[in-house]
Amino acid sequence: MATTLKRLLIGRPLKTREMGHAKIGVIKGMAVMTPDALSSVAYATDQMELILMSLIGAGSAKEYVSDVLGFSMMGTFIIVVLALLLFFAYRNIIYHYPLGGGAYAIGLNDLGKYWGLSAASTLIVGYTLTVAVSIAAGIDAIGPVVPLIGHHKLIANIVLTLIIMLINLRGTSESANVFVPFTYIFIGCILLLGVTAVVKAIMHPVSIHIPSVAGMHAVQGMGLFLFLRMFANGCSALTGVEAVSNSVPVFKDPSAFRAQRLLLTLVITLSVLFLIVSGTAVMHGLTYNADIPLINQESMLLFGTHGFGYIITVIVSVSTMCILAIAANTAFTGCPALWSAMARDGFMPRWLLHKGDRLVYSNGIVFLTFISLALTIGFHAQVSDLMPLYGVSVFYTFSVSQLGMVVRTVKERQRKWLYRTIGSGCGFALTAIACLIFGITRFTSGAWLVIVCVPLMILMFSKIQHHYQQIREDLKYDFSRPLQPDRHTITLVPIASVNKSSVHALEYALANFKNVVAVSVIAQNSQEEADETERVLREQWARLNSGVRLVVIHSQYRSVARRLQRFVDLELDRYEPEDITVVVPQFITKSWWHKLLHNKTGSVLMAWLILGKSVKVLAVPYRLPR
Amino acid sequence: MATTLKRLLIGRPLKTREMGHAKIGVIKGMAVMTPDALSSVAYATDQMELILMSLIGAGSAKEYVSDVLGFSMMGTFIIVVLALLLFFAYRNIIYHYPLGGGAYAIGLNDLGKYWGLSAASTLIVGYTLTVAVSIAAGIDAIGPVVPLIGHHKLIANIVLTLIIMLINLRGTSESANVFVPFTYIFIGCILLLGVTAVVKAIMHPVSIHIPSVAGMHAVQGMGLFLFLRMFANGCSALTGVEAVSNSVPVFKDPSAFRAQRLLLTLVITLSVLFLIVSGTAVMHGLTYNADIPLINQESMLLFGTHGFGYIITVIVSVSTMCILAIAANTAFTGCPALWSAMARDGFMPRWLLHKGDRLVYSNGIVFLTFISLALTIGFHAQVSDLMPLYGVSVFYTFSVSQLGMVVRTVKERQRKWLYRTIGSGCGFALTAIACLIFGITRFTSGAWLVIVCVPLMILMFSKIQHHYQQIREDLKYDFSRPLQPDRHTITLVPIASVNKSSVHALEYALANFKNVVAVSVIAQNSQEEADETERVLREQWARLNSGVRLVVIHSQYRSVARRLQRFVDLELDRYEPEDITVVVPQFITKSWWHKLLHNKTGSVLMAWLILGKSVKVLAVPYRLPR
Repeated sequence: MATTLKRLLIGRPLKTREMGHAKIGVIKGMAVMTPDALSSVAYATDQMELILMSLIGAGSAKEYVSDVLGFSMMGTFIIVVLALLLFFAYRNIIYHYPLGGGAYAIGLNDLGKYWGLSAASTLIVGYTLTVAVSIAAGIDAIGPVVPLIGHHKLIANIVLTLIIMLINLRGTSESANVFVPFTYIFIGCILLLGVTAVVKAIMHPVSIHIPSVAGMHAVQGMGLFLFLRMFANGCSALTGVEAVSNSVPVFKDPSAFRAQRLLLTLVITLSVLFLIVSGTAVMHGLTYNADIPLINQESMLLFGTHGFGYIITVIVSVSTMCILAIAANTAFTGCPALWSAMARDGFMPRWLLHKGDRLVYSNGIVFLTFISLALTIGFHAQVSDLMPLYGVSVFYTFSVSQLGMVVRTVKERQRKWLYRTIGSGCGFALTAIACLIFGITRFTSGAWLVIVCVPLMILMFSKIQHHYQQIREDLKYDFSRPLQPDRHTITLVPIASVNKSSVHALEYALANFKNVVAVSVIAQNSQEEADETERVLREQWARLNSGVRLVVIHSQYRSVARRLQRFVDLELDRYEPEDITVVVPQFITKSWWHKLLHNKTGSVLMAWLILGKSVKVLAVPYRLPR
Repeated sequence: MATTLKRLLIGRPLKTREMGHAKIGVIKGMAVMTPDALSSVAYATDQMELILMSLIGAGSAKEYVSDVLGFSMMGTFIIVVLALLLFFAYRNIIYHYPLGGGAYAIGLNDLGKYWGLSAASTLIVGYTLTVAVSIAAGIDAIGPVVPLIGHHKLIANIVLTLIIMLINLRGTSESANVFVPFTYIFIGCILLLGVTAVVKAIMHPVSIHIPSVAGMHAVQGMGLFLFLRMFANGCSALTGVEAVSNSVPVFKDPSAFRAQRLLLTLVITLSVLFLIVSGTAVMHGLTYNADIPLINQESMLLFGTHGFGYIITVIVSVSTMCILAIAANTAFTGCPALWSAMARDGFMPRWLLHKGDRLVYSNGIVFLTFISLALTIGFHAQVSDLMPLYGVSVFYTFSVSQLGMVVRTVKERQRKWLYRTIGSGCGFALTAIACLIFGITRFTSGAWLVIVCVPLMILMFSKIQHHYQQIREDLKYDFSRPLQPDRHTITLVPIASVNKSSVHALEYALANFKNVVAVSVIAQNSQEEADETERVLREQWARLNSGVRLVVIHSQYRSVARRLQRFVDLELDRYEPEDITVVVPQFITKSWWHKLLHNKTGSVLMAWLILGKSVKVLAVPYRLPR
C-alpha cells in the first residue's frame, strides 16, 4: 500500500548510473539558475516602500508620498550599482572555483572551519527563508486574481510548499525543462510593463519628484538610519546572485566563460527589471499595500482590470507566482546538496549524505520542507516579517565568499592578482557593510534571531563532528590484535510454552551453541494460576526430553521482559554481557490485524536486551502456515 | 524520565501477592457498588421530562405543563415497580452464581457462545456509555455552581475522564475507601431535599395534577408510543442494578445473603430517591432545562441561592458530581475485568488478559478511556444524545441474564425451581419488553447504532477466537517427532567497514557458526565513490586475514537494507530461509541525540529480515566506551 502510493507520487527508484549528465548553455542556464535572483524584484520594491510608508501616518500627509517614492527610487539606483559590483566579485569566484564553490566550501578551504560553518549556517537560514519567502510572495502575487487563494493564504502556502517538495522528490533533471518558458515569460511581462509605463508616461506626462532637503525634513524623522533600513529591505533583490557561481560545472565548455556571461546577463536583467518595477511605482504614485503587491498594482493600472488588459494582468500574476515557485525550487536543489557536502565532512547527520530512490537527496528535501513549513506557519506567511531574517544571512554569506577570495588571491598571487584582490575586497567591503546595516537596522525586527541561531548552529555542527570523530576512534580496529579465540558462553532460550515455534528455536540453539538453558517467565494474575502454568510447562518439558535445563521464574510484577532482564542481570553475574546470547522464538503472523492480537513480548524483549544490556540477541522466526 | 513520571502518577509496581483480600459488608458495599445505580436518579427524571416537554412547543400551552409532569410521575411509579421485580430476578442470580456471574458468563454457560458474546457486546457498550454519560451528567451537575466548568463542559469532561483513568491506573483497592462518604452524603442530600419539599408542600399546599383524558388530548399527540419513549428514558434509573450480582465473592460470609440484602437496600433506596426527585419536580412544576439539571433546580428552589441555603445547594451539586464520577469508576473496574475474562476465553486480544504494574488491568483501563473519550467528543458530551444508546444495551444485558437463569433453573430443577423460574421469567419478559421499547422508540435517535454495532462486535470476537484457535493448532508441537539434527546452514555477516563493532560480530560468528560469509553493500552517490569504497574495504579485509570470504555488492538504488534482502532472496536460492542466519553488528551509542546521527540500517535490516524473510537474525551489540 505505502509502497504503491510512494511509487505513484515519487516514481520508480532510479539506478545510480541513470544520473543525468546533460550540460546546459546560457539560455537554459538563465531559465534554471536565475529565478531566485530575478523573482526577488517581485517583492523588493514593496519592502522598501513598506519602511518608507511607515513614516507617514496612514491618511495624513498625502503630499509627502512623492517624497517617499523618490527615496525608494534613490535606493533602487544604489542597489543596481551594488549589483554591478557584485558581478565583478563573483566573476572572480567563478575563475577560481571552476568546479563550483559555495560560500561553505570557500570559507572552509580558504578561511578555516568556523568561517565555513558560519557561512553554512547563514546559507541554510537563507535557503530555508528562500522557500518560505518565495512561496509566500508567490501566493501574494496570485492572491489578487484568484480570490479563493487570496482568502486562504496560509493553507495555500502549505499546499504549494508540499507540491514543490513532491516535484523535487521526483527528481529535478526531468522537471528543469518545464521551468524554461516561465522565466522568459516573467521577464517579458516586466519588460512589457516597463514599455507600457514609458509609453503612457510620454502620452500623459508625469513628473518624477526628486526629494529635496525640504522634503526630507517633511518626511518626519527620515534619517540615515531609516534610509539604511529601506536600503536593507531593497537589497533582497540581490539574493540568489550566488547560485550561478555554485554551478559552474553544469555549463557546456568553456564552462567558466559561459558562467561568467550568464552572470553578466543576470545582473543586467535584474537591474532593468528592478528599475522598471520601482520606476513605474514612482511614476504613478503607487504605494505599498499588504494585499496587492506593487507588480499587480502596476499591471492593473497599466493594462486595466477587464477585457484583454485583464488577461495580461492575470498573465503577469501567474508568471510572477511561477517564477517565485521556481525560486523556492532553487533552495530545494541547493540546500540538500549543501547538507550532503556537510555530512561528508562530518558536520551533519549521515542520513543526509546519500541520494535517495530518485537520485535526489530525499531526506534533505523532506527535512527542508519541515523547517520552512515551521517558518511559514510561525510567521503566518508574512513576507515582510521574514525579510529581516533573510537579509542578514544572505549578505553574511556573500561577504564570507568575498573574504575567502581575497585570502586566496593574495596567497596564490596569480596573474592580475592585485586587480582581482581589489575587486573581491570591494565586494567584501560592500557586502559586509550591507550585512551590518541589516543586522543593526533590523535587529529588533527579527535579525537578532539569525544572530542568535547562527552560533547555536555552529556549535551543533561542531558537536556532531566531534561525535563522529569519537565514534571513528572508538571503533578503529587494531589490526595487530589477533582474532579472539572461543570463550565460555551461555545461551538462553526464553519460552512461554512447548510449541512448534519455541522448539524450532531450541533446536537451532542446540545445533549452534554450547551451554543452552531454557528460561520461562510466568506472569499470571494470581499465584494459583502461576503454579498451574508451571506444572503444565514442566510436564511438557519432560515429554520433550531435550536434555536442556529449564529454569522457571515467577514474575511478581507480571512483566516478562523486565523479569528476564533482571534474570540476565542478577542471576548470571558470573558471565559478562558479551558472553550471553538470548535466542528469542518469534512466530510471524500474516495479516496486520493478527499482530494486534499478540503480546509484543518477543520484540520488546529484543529491544530491551540489545539496547539496555548489550546482550547478543538472536531472533528465530517461525512463519505460521496461514 | 518516562519511568519517573509514571511512578509519580501511577505509583510503584506491586507484586502479585500484594493483592488485597479484604472482604466487605453491606455498609461499605452500598458505598462501593451502588453509585452506578443511585447516580442515575441524577438524570433519569430529566430524560423523561425532555421527551414530554418536546410535545408542548416552547412558550406555548403553558397550562399543559402540569399534565406533562403528571405523566412523568406515572412513569416514575411504573419504573419503581419494575425495580422491585428486578430485585426478585437478581436474587435468583445471586443464589445460582455465588462466585459472581455477569451476563457474559451466564449467557456463555447457560445459553451458548452467541448469547454470551451478544451480552458481552451490550455490556461493553453499556460500560463505555456509563463512563461517558456519568461524567457528562456530573459536569452538568457542577456546572450551575462553578461557571468556569459550565462554560467549558467538553474540556471538563475530558479532564475528568483522564483523572478517573489515572485514579484507576493507580489501583482501586486503596481508593475504594475514599468513596464511602460520598455515596452517603448524596443519599442524605436527596433525602433532605425530599423532607424539605414535603415540609414546604404542607406549609404552602400545592396540588398534584393527575392527568385526565382531557389533559391527555390536550397534550397534543401524547400516544402510547411517546409514553413508551418517556418510559424508556426513565428506565435509565435502573442501570447498574447488575453490579451487585457480579461481585458476590467480595462480601463477608454468608456472602450470598449479604449480597441479596444489599440488593434489597439498593432497590428501596433507588426507588425512594427517584420518587423524591420526580415528585419534587412535579410538585413545584419544574421542567427540563438543558443547562440546569432538575436536582440543581430543586435544591436552588428549596434551599435558595444565597446564604446558608446556597451552601446546601452547592453540597447537593458537588455530591451529585462525585457520585456520578464514582459511577464512571464502576465501569473502569467492571469493563477491564470483563475484557480479561473474554481474553481468557480467547475472544479478546491477549494483552487485555493480565494485570499491570498496579494489579489492575491497565491496558483495559486505557483502552476504555480511549473509547469513552471518542464517544464524549463525538456526542459533544450531551447526556440526552447518549441515552438512547445506553438503554437498549442495558436492557438487552438484563434480559440475557434473566433468560440464562430461566434455562438454568429449568435444567437443574432444584428446590423451588418453578417459583424461581417464574421470577426469572417475569424479569426476562419485563426487561426484554423494555429493551424492545427502547429499540423501537429510540431507533432513529441512536439505538440503531447499538443494533448495528453489536453484530459487528460479535463477528469480531468470533474472528479473534478463530485466530487464536488456529494459532494454537498451528503451533501445537508433535511430541512423537524427534528433535531435528544439524542442518546445512549459511551465516552472513553484513559489514560496512572493518571496525571494532564489525570484527566483534565476525569473531562471534566464527566461534559459533560454520560457513560464515561477510557481505558488504556499498551505497554511494556515484560509481567512482563506490569503487573507491570497495578498494579501501578489500584492502582492510585482506589485512584482517580472517579466512572469511567477503562478498561486495554495489547497490544501484543506494539502499543497503533492500539490497541485502535481495541478496538473501536471489543469490542464496540454494538455502531455505530457515537455514540462513544473519549476524548484524550494532554499536550502541549512549545519549539519545547520538542515535539521531546514525543511519538505522542495522535495526531496519533486522526488522525487514525477520518479518519479511523469516531469516534468523542475530544482533551483536558493541557498546561504545563513551
